[in-house]
Amino acid sequence: MQLNQQDLTGLDKEFRRAFINSLAGFRQAVLVGTISDKGQSNLAIFNSLIHLGANPALFGLINRPDSVQRDTLQNIQNSGCYTLNYVAGSDYQKAHQTSARYPVGVSEFEQVGFEEVYHDGFAAPFVAGAIVQIAMKFEERIDIKRNGTVMIVGSIQNVRVDKSLVEPDGFVNLSTAGVLVSQGLDAYFTTSPLGRLPYAKP
Amino acid sequence: MQLNQQDLTGLDKEFRRAFINSLAGFRQAVLVGTISDKGQSNLAIFNSLIHLGANPALFGLINRPDSVQRDTLQNIQNSGCYTLNYVAGSDYQKAHQTSARYPVGVSEFEQVGFEEVYHDGFAAPFVAGAIVQIAMKFEERIDIKRNGTVMIVGSIQNVRVDKSLVEPDGFVNLSTAGVLVSQGLDAYFTTSPLGRLPYAKP
Repeated sequence: MQLNQQDLTGLDKEFRRAFINSLAGFRQAVLVGTISDKGQSNLAIFNSLIHLGANPALFGLINRPDSVQRDTLQNIQNSGCYTLNYVAGSDYQKAHQTSARYPVGVSEFEQVGFEEVYHDGFAAPFVAGAIVQIAMKFEERIDIKRNGTVMIVGSIQNVRVDKSLVEPDGFVNLSTAGVLVSQGLDAYFTTSPLGRLPYAKP
Repeated sequence: MQLNQQDLTGLDKEFRRAFINSLAGFRQAVLVGTISDKGQSNLAIFNSLIHLGANPALFGLINRPDSVQRDTLQNIQNSGCYTLNYVAGSDYQKAHQTSARYPVGVSEFEQVGFEEVYHDGFAAPFVAGAIVQIAMKFEERIDIKRNGTVMIVGSIQNVRVDKSLVEPDGFVNLSTAGVLVSQGLDAYFTTSPLGRLPYAKP
């Protein structure tokens, strides 16, 4: 089938939302842990993690300030820090449940059943037992004016990952650990490896 | 294991590159088709596709102008258009090979063995037989000054996808089609579905 711009505009709103979101393909499911200036922890699932550079190690995150993601953006800007946590595929229902619109003053950690943990005096909470736990420092907010979304640029402060997952050349074997992948607004997956390939030469 | 910012800075350059790139997790592998002002076609694999919004339908793409991705950025800026193509897992070796640094004047389509095809007078080439084929219009370049990367913001002009993959609510079932997923610089995967979940409520 073929849909042009006019067809897309004419689609039912919910259909278009599911279609365009899922059309963007597979992405890393990441649980973002933050803390408010009142000490209230927050955990929210994102699927918009972006690799920006390795040295310095910078990751981006797309945030929609008009959504349930608003609290996460505010906490990151106020506290200057946040955590990125990857969980196993078997936790996909708990991970998805963090996207519910809980009242302010309620921690998603408690509500969905992930345990919050703090490491080395870092202010933002981590997900206990998460396969990958990354401490991030807020560096820059980039406003994408065309549609009001925001890119949060952060630098990696600390990485915790089981040594057995890190291959001799530095590659982190997330597939072996069964790390959760998402697509669109509500679909979850694990991965099956096809292989790694040598640096491509003409 | 645990690595802090100082540890990361002290790592061997190649190890750090593989570590940080793969740490960013799984992403959609996308072949970006462009054409130069001399009519030379170009095809390059990216793993930085970002969903920015559904209405208008906007996708972002991170580009490193200091890399082999330079030609793609130039072509997009000059021609104002590009294509996004998702291929099957079985094509992972051909897809990876587009990352080789071919001389200017050589088309990656020919070199790696994908057939280029043009639809409806759209200037940029598509990958014939790709599971998803999206025509994109260049909208905006956002410079991420911190490390010299660029976000290309584009709007969806046209989508081609087999009708059988689009579920009644609009979800595009890329997993059933065996669409290729990547991680880091050289690892490729397909996906195994865990399930889709209803809209989360508190």
